[in-house]
Amino acid sequence: MSGHIGHALCVQIFGESHGAALGATLDGLPAGFRVDLPALEAFLQRRTAHRGGELATGRRESDKPRILSGLKDGVTTGQPITAIFENADTHSADYAFLPDRPRPGHADYPAMVKSAGYDDLRGGGYHSGRLTLAYAFAGGLALQYLAAQGVRIASHALMIGGVTDTPVDPLTPDMDALQACRTFPVPTLDATAGERMRQAILAAKAAEDSVGGVAEVVATGLPAGLGAPFFDGVEAVAAAHFFSIPAVKGVAFGAGFAAANMRGSAYNDPYTVADHRVVTIKNDAGGLLGGLTDGMPVVARVAFRPTPSIGLAQQTVSLTAMEETTLTVQGRHDPCIVVRALPVVEGALALALCDLWLGRHGDAPAEATDAD
Amino acid sequence: MSGHIGHALCVQIFGESHGAALGATLDGLPAGFRVDLPALEAFLQRRTAHRGGELATGRRESDKPRILSGLKDGVTTGQPITAIFENADTHSADYAFLPDRPRPGHADYPAMVKSAGYDDLRGGGYHSGRLTLAYAFAGGLALQYLAAQGVRIASHALMIGGVTDTPVDPLTPDMDALQACRTFPVPTLDATAGERMRQAILAAKAAEDSVGGVAEVVATGLPAGLGAPFFDGVEAVAAAHFFSIPAVKGVAFGAGFAAANMRGSAYNDPYTVADHRVVTIKNDAGGLLGGLTDGMPVVARVAFRPTPSIGLAQQTVSLTAMEETTLTVQGRHDPCIVVRALPVVEGALALALCDLWLGRHGDAPAEATDAD
Amino acid sequence: MSGHIGHALCVQIFGESHGAALGATLDGLPAGFRVDLPALEAFLQRRTAHRGGELATGRRESDKPRILSGLKDGVTTGQPITAIFENADTHSADYAFLPDRPRPGHADYPAMVKSAGYDDLRGGGYHSGRLTLAYAFAGGLALQYLAAQGVRIASHALMIGGVTDTPVDPLTPDMDALQACRTFPVPTLDATAGERMRQAILAAKAAEDSVGGVAEVVATGLPAGLGAPFFDGVEAVAAAHFFSIPAVKGVAFGAGFAAANMRGSAYNDPYTVADHRVVTIKNDAGGLLGGLTDGMPVVARVAFRPTPSIGLAQQTVSLTAMEETTLTVQGRHDPCIVVRALPVVEGALALALCDLWLGRHGDAPAEATDAD
Amino acid sequence: MSGHIGHALCVQIFGESHGAALGATLDGLPAGFRVDLPALEAFLQRRTAHRGGELATGRRESDKPRILSGLKDGVTTGQPITAIFENADTHSADYAFLPDRPRPGHADYPAMVKSAGYDDLRGGGYHSGRLTLAYAFAGGLALQYLAAQGVRIASHALMIGGVTDTPVDPLTPDMDALQACRTFPVPTLDATAGERMRQAILAAKAAEDSVGGVAEVVATGLPAGLGAPFFDGVEAVAAAHFFSIPAVKGVAFGAGFAAANMRGSAYNDPYTVADHRVVTIKNDAGGLLGGLTDGMPVVARVAFRPTPSIGLAQQTVSLTAMEETTLTVQGRHDPCIVVRALPVVEGALALALCDLWLGRHGDAPAEATDAD
Repeated sequence: MSGHIGHALCVQIFGESHGAALGATLDGLPAGFRVDLPALEAFLQRRTAHRGGELATGRRESDKPRILSGLKDGVTTGQPITAIFENADTHSADYAFLPDRPRPGHADYPAMVKSAGYDDLRGGGYHSGRLTLAYAFAGGLALQYLAAQGVRIASHALMIGGVTDTPVDPLTPDMDALQACRTFPVPTLDATAGERMRQAILAAKAAEDSVGGVAEVVATGLPAGLGAPFFDGVEAVAAAHFFSIPAVKGVAFGAGFAAANMRGSAYNDPYTVADHRVVTIKNDAGGLLGGLTDGMPVVARVAFRPTPSIGLAQQTVSLTAMEETTLTVQGRHDPCIVVRALPVVEGALALALCDLWLGRHGDAPAEATDAD
Repeated sequence: MSGHIGHALCVQIFGESHGAALGATLDGLPAGFRVDLPALEAFLQRRTAHRGGELATGRRESDKPRILSGLKDGVTTGQPITAIFENADTHSADYAFLPDRPRPGHADYPAMVKSAGYDDLRGGGYHSGRLTLAYAFAGGLALQYLAAQGVRIASHALMIGGVTDTPVDPLTPDMDALQACRTFPVPTLDATAGERMRQAILAAKAAEDSVGGVAEVVATGLPAGLGAPFFDGVEAVAAAHFFSIPAVKGVAFGAGFAAANMRGSAYNDPYTVADHRVVTIKNDAGGLLGGLTDGMPVVARVAFRPTPSIGLAQQTVSLTAMEETTLTVQGRHDPCIVVRALPVVEGALALALCDLWLGRHGDAPAEATDAD
Repeated sequence: MSGHIGHALCVQIFGESHGAALGATLDGLPAGFRVDLPALEAFLQRRTAHRGGELATGRRESDKPRILSGLKDGVTTGQPITAIFENADTHSADYAFLPDRPRPGHADYPAMVKSAGYDDLRGGGYHSGRLTLAYAFAGGLALQYLAAQGVRIASHALMIGGVTDTPVDPLTPDMDALQACRTFPVPTLDATAGERMRQAILAAKAAEDSVGGVAEVVATGLPAGLGAPFFDGVEAVAAAHFFSIPAVKGVAFGAGFAAANMRGSAYNDPYTVADHRVVTIKNDAGGLLGGLTDGMPVVARVAFRPTPSIGLAQQTVSLTAMEETTLTVQGRHDPCIVVRALPVVEGALALALCDLWLGRHGDAPAEATDAD
Repeated sequence: MSGHIGHALCVQIFGESHGAALGATLDGLPAGFRVDLPALEAFLQRRTAHRGGELATGRRESDKPRILSGLKDGVTTGQPITAIFENADTHSADYAFLPDRPRPGHADYPAMVKSAGYDDLRGGGYHSGRLTLAYAFAGGLALQYLAAQGVRIASHALMIGGVTDTPVDPLTPDMDALQACRTFPVPTLDATAGERMRQAILAAKAAEDSVGGVAEVVATGLPAGLGAPFFDGVEAVAAAHFFSIPAVKGVAFGAGFAAANMRGSAYNDPYTVADHRVVTIKNDAGGLLGGLTDGMPVVARVAFRPTPSIGLAQQTVSLTAMEETTLTVQGRHDPCIVVRALPVVEGALALALCDLWLGRHGDAPAEATDAD
C-alpha cells in the first residue's frame, strides 16, 4: 500500500506517467460544499508545464480533470470525489535505457528491486512527479474547503539556484502579495529575486543540468488548538504530506533548523493580548506548539533536491551486465521543479490541516457553503 | 485521537506527566522474537534524567518498564506488548501558574483551548517530554527486531548550542564509534565537540536559560527497495515519527536543505558495482530515493528547539484577566533535551523502518530469533 | 469517509449510479502477479443484468472495466490498480419522486438527512447496488491472487423466496459443483431447487414485488493460523466486508445461529490426524476458531433482504409537505438481487482473506505468478 | 496487529489471561466529559464471575479497573484513557495439556500454528474471554458518552439452551424493562424464560457440558443519518465489533435472516409522520437502511456458540505425537457465557456507534457534560 493517506479526510492516488490515466479520490469532504471548478482548474494550471514555459519540461498535457463522482451541480454530495487525467503526450521510447540503466538520483533502481522488475517505470511511472497532478487535485479541494472556514494558504519560492527571496513575515504575512506573485515566471515576494532565479534555472537548463530550491508556505486564519500532541500533531501530519511529494528532502516549521541554535529566552514567543485575543509578539514557532496550532500563522519550509533527470552524461550501472556504464537521459524534463511544485505544497498543507479540521469538527454539513 | 501510529506495526501511547503512570502498547511484532530485556532497559536509561546528570532535570524516576503483556519467558507471543512506567517524583505544586499563565513556547495555551480547559497540564501532562519514555520503549523493541534482521541504528549530537560535531560519513558511517560515544556526557564523534557542547549547556543552565540542537541518526544494513513512493515512503513515515517527538522543528534526509542548493549533476549519487552489489559512490540522497531505500545508509537530521521551560522571567498573559503578565517557571527542567532525546530519535527511526519492514515481509514468525 | 477498507490490501470505491462513471482502486497487491483479464471480465459478467436476464433489472450496461493503472502487460506493477466503469443507460427521470418521497426500505431518507439534501440519489446514487460492480472488480483481483496461493472460493444461492438448496458439505465442499452451477439461471447445487427459486423470483416480479435470500460462500485451501483474535479476526474482517454489501442483514459462520442452540459436546469439532495433517472430523465452526482459520473450509452465510424498489404502491411521506403519501416506483429494478450478488459475496470474502494473507506474508513479490 | 479498532474513537486492548495484567486504551473521547466511575464499575461487574455465581466460572477476580491516564478529577482530558486489571486468581497448572493437546472448538490449535508455538495459551492467553473485560471498559465509556447524547443501549438474553425470551418490540422497545432485568440471574424480559434458561445452564453444567445462546441488543435515541454506505456503515462497523467478541458466530440486524424470506412489500418499513418527525410504522430494518440509521431503534442479534472448555472427555490430537488422543479439561469454565457477555455486547455496539458519532460531530468539547 502506498497511495492512501488521511484519517478524517482521505486521499487515494493512482496512475502511471505513461499509463492510460492518473487520478485521485478525495473521501471525507462534507456534503453541501460548492466547489469553484474554474478556480480549481486554475489552481491545477499553476503546476502545468504550459505554465512553466521555458522553465519546464516540453511534455504538453491539458491537465484538465474529468470529475467522475462526488459532485452534483458543482456541490459536494458527501461521497468520494474522483477525478482522472488522461495521459496523451507520452514518449515512452525516451525510456529505452530502462530497466537496464537506472538514473542516478531517481527511484528507478530501488523501484526495480522492490517490484522484482515488474514496476512500470516509463516516464517515472507511478514515481513520477506527474502523480502530483492527482494529489494537487485533492489538495485544491481541501484548499477551497479551508478557505470557506477562513483559512488562507499561499506560498512562494524562497530559494532557487542559490538565489534567496525575502522570507514571509511570520507574524503578519502579506498573503495578497503571495497571491499576486503566483503569475510571475518564478513566484517571489521580491521580483528581482524571482528574475535571478529564472536566470539560474535557464543557466542550469543550458548546461543540461538542473537546480533545486526551497518553497515557503503559509497558512493564516487558523484557530488555536487544532491538531494534537504526538502522532496527529500538525507537524507530523503535514510533514507526512510534504515528504510524500517526490524530491522533498527537508521540512521545517517556523525557525526550523535555526531554532536549534537559539536559546529558549530568544526562541520562545511571548504572549500578549490584542483585540481580546491571545497572540504572540513574534512567531519563531511557526504557529505550532507541540503539534497544536497557537492561532498565529503556520509557516513551513520545504526543500527540494534538483531534478535527477539531466542531459549531462552520468555514471550508472547496467543491471544486466552488472558493470558500470554511462547514461545520457534524452527525455523531456524540468530543469527545476520548485515553481510547478508550489501549488502541490499548498495543497499538501491544506490536506493535512483539513484532515485535522474535519477530525475536530466532524463531517456534518452546515448550510451549503461556497468556496468563496 | 492522537496516541496511535503505524500500519503493520502500531504504537499506542498513554499517560500524563503527573498522572498515575504512563505507558505504551506495541502491536504487530511477530511471535518468537527473544527480547533482550537488560539491553532494552539500558536503552531506556540513555534518556533518563539520571543519565543526563548535571545536564538534565532534577526529577528522579526509575523509568523501569513493567511489562504487562506480549512476552512469555522474554519471547514475543505475537500479541500486543504493553509496558507501564509509574510516576513517583512529581511536584505538581510547581505548576500553580497553570492554567492561568501559559508558558511561552510550550503547548500549554493551545492545549487549554483545544480541551476547553479540561486537559491535565501538570508537568506538561500528556504533552510532556516524559511521554517519550513510553514511545522509546516501543522504539527500543523495534530497534532490537531490526537488529536481528541486520539493521543497525545509531545517532549522535550533531550540534548543540552552536557547537558542531563531525557529521557521520554517509557512505561508510562508523557505527562502532557512534555506539561507543553513547556513554559520553554528550555523545559526539569528536569528543572535544562534546565537551564544548556540555559547556554550552551548563552556561545556558547557569543563565537559567536553555539551548536546542540537532541530532543525526543513521541506519545501516537496509536492503534496497524498502518503503514506497508517496505516503508510505520512508521519508514520510519516518518524518511523521520524528515530528511526533515534542520539540522537533525540522527534519532532513541526506544532504537535506543543502540539497536544495546543489545542481543535479552534483547531487545525484552515481552508481557503481562493488562485491556484486549495486552501490553509490557518494550518498547525498541519504539512502533514500523517492520514498525507497537504495541500499546505502539512511541518514537523517532532526532539529530540536530549546526547552521552553526556563527560569528567566518571560512575558505571557493571564487567561483569566486577559492581560499581559510575567511568568517565572520554578519547576525542574532540562537545559537541553537533545542528549536525552538521542535514543528517542533512534527509536523513532526504528519504528518507521520496522513498520515498513513488516508490511513488506509480513508477521509470520520464522524460527525463534534473538535480539543479538 | 465511507469508501475505504483494508489494512494491507485496501479498496477505495467511488461513483454514483447516474453519475459519469464509477470505479475502484485496489492498493496493496504485490508486483509480479499476472491477472487473467478475460477471467476477471467473466467474473464481473456474473453480476451483470444481462446475465440476470428475466430475473434482473432492465438496465443494460457493458460493465466492462477500463483499467487505468497498476497493470503492465497484464501483470501487476505493485502500484494501485484502478478501473472505471462508464455509466451509459441511465433513466434519471424515473427518480422524479426524489428527494421528496423516499422509498421505504431504501437509504433515500437517511441519506437525505445525512447530506442535508446534497447527496445525489438518482438511481440510488452512491448507495446503489451498482457500486458493487466496482467493489467486485477489486474482489475479483483478490480472488485471483488467492487462487494462485491455492485458495478457492465459490458460492451458491442457499435460499430464495422460501426455497432452500442443499447446503454445502462443510468438511468436503464440492467446489467443482459450485463452480459448475454458476451458469445456471439460479446457481444451486440442487438444480430443481434453483428452478423453483427462479419461479419464486418470477412470481414476485409478476406481482410487482421482490424477494430476498441467503448466499452461502466457501473458501478452501487456507492454512491454519490465518487471522487474529479480536479485531483482525477473519470473522470481524469478513463480516465488515459482507455487511458493506447493500441489502445484507445477517452474516453467520459455520453453524452460525444454530450453534447457539447446541451443547459444547455437540458443537466442538474433534480433531484427528489425516495425511500427517491436523484436521477436524466435522466443521460446525466453519473453519474459524476465535478469529483464526483452523485449516478446514471457511463457510459463511449472508442474508439479503428483498429489493426495496418494487412496483406495488407503498406508503411513504412527502418530506416537503411532511405528510403521508403513496409512492409507486417506476424505474427498472431487480426482483431479487441474490443471484447477481453471488460474485460480490465471493469477492468480499476474497478481499477479507487476501488482506489478512498479505498482512501475514507481506507484499514482497516472489517470482511472477499466474492467476491460474 | 490484532488489538486495535476504530477511526475517530480507537480501542487498543492488551494482556493475557494468566499474564500480569490486561487492559485497554480508549483514544478519541472528547475532553470535558465527566465519567460516572461507580456506574462504570457497576457496568463491569455485570460481566464478573461473581455476578454469574453458580452459572459462571469459579475464577475470582476483582475486575476493578485501575485508571492510569486520561481522566482528571473524573473528567476526560481529551487524551488516551488507559485502565489496567491485574490478574490474581490464575491456575496455570490446569493448562498442562497445552500446547500438546489443543481443545476442540477453542483457538488453541490455530494460535499455536500462527505463533509457531510462541503464543501464551495459559487460560486462553490473549484469546481468552477475559480480554473482554478490557474491551468492556472501553465500551462502558462509550456507553456513557452516548447516553449524554440521548442514546440508550440495553440488551437481554433472547435465547439460551433452546429457551427463548420475548423479543424486544423493535418499534417501541421497553428500555426500562431491559435495564431492570440486568440484575436477574439471567436477564430476560419474561422472567419465567430466564428461570428456564438458568435451569438449562445448570443442567449443562451438571452434565459437564456447556450451552450457547443469542443476545439481543437495542439502541434508542439515535438521529437519522448516522453511519455511511458501505465500509463505514453501522452494520459493517458494528458487526466488526460484535464478531471481535470471542464465541460470536452470527450477527443480524432487524429481521435479519428472517428478512431473507420476506417479500419487499412485507419487509419495507412504511413511513409516516408523528410529532413532526418522519418515523416508520414497523421496524424490520432494525433502524438501519444501507449503513445509515433511519432514526428508529437499532436492533441487533448476536449468536454465541457454547463454551468450548467442557469437563466431558473430548477427542483431540497430540501435536507432538501427531496422533489422536483424549482430552478432559480440568480448569474452571463458564457453562454459558451469554449472561456475562451482555455488557460486552452493549459496549461493542456503543463503541461502533460512538466512533461514527465522533466522526460525524468531531471531538471538539462542548461545555462539560455529564454521564447522566
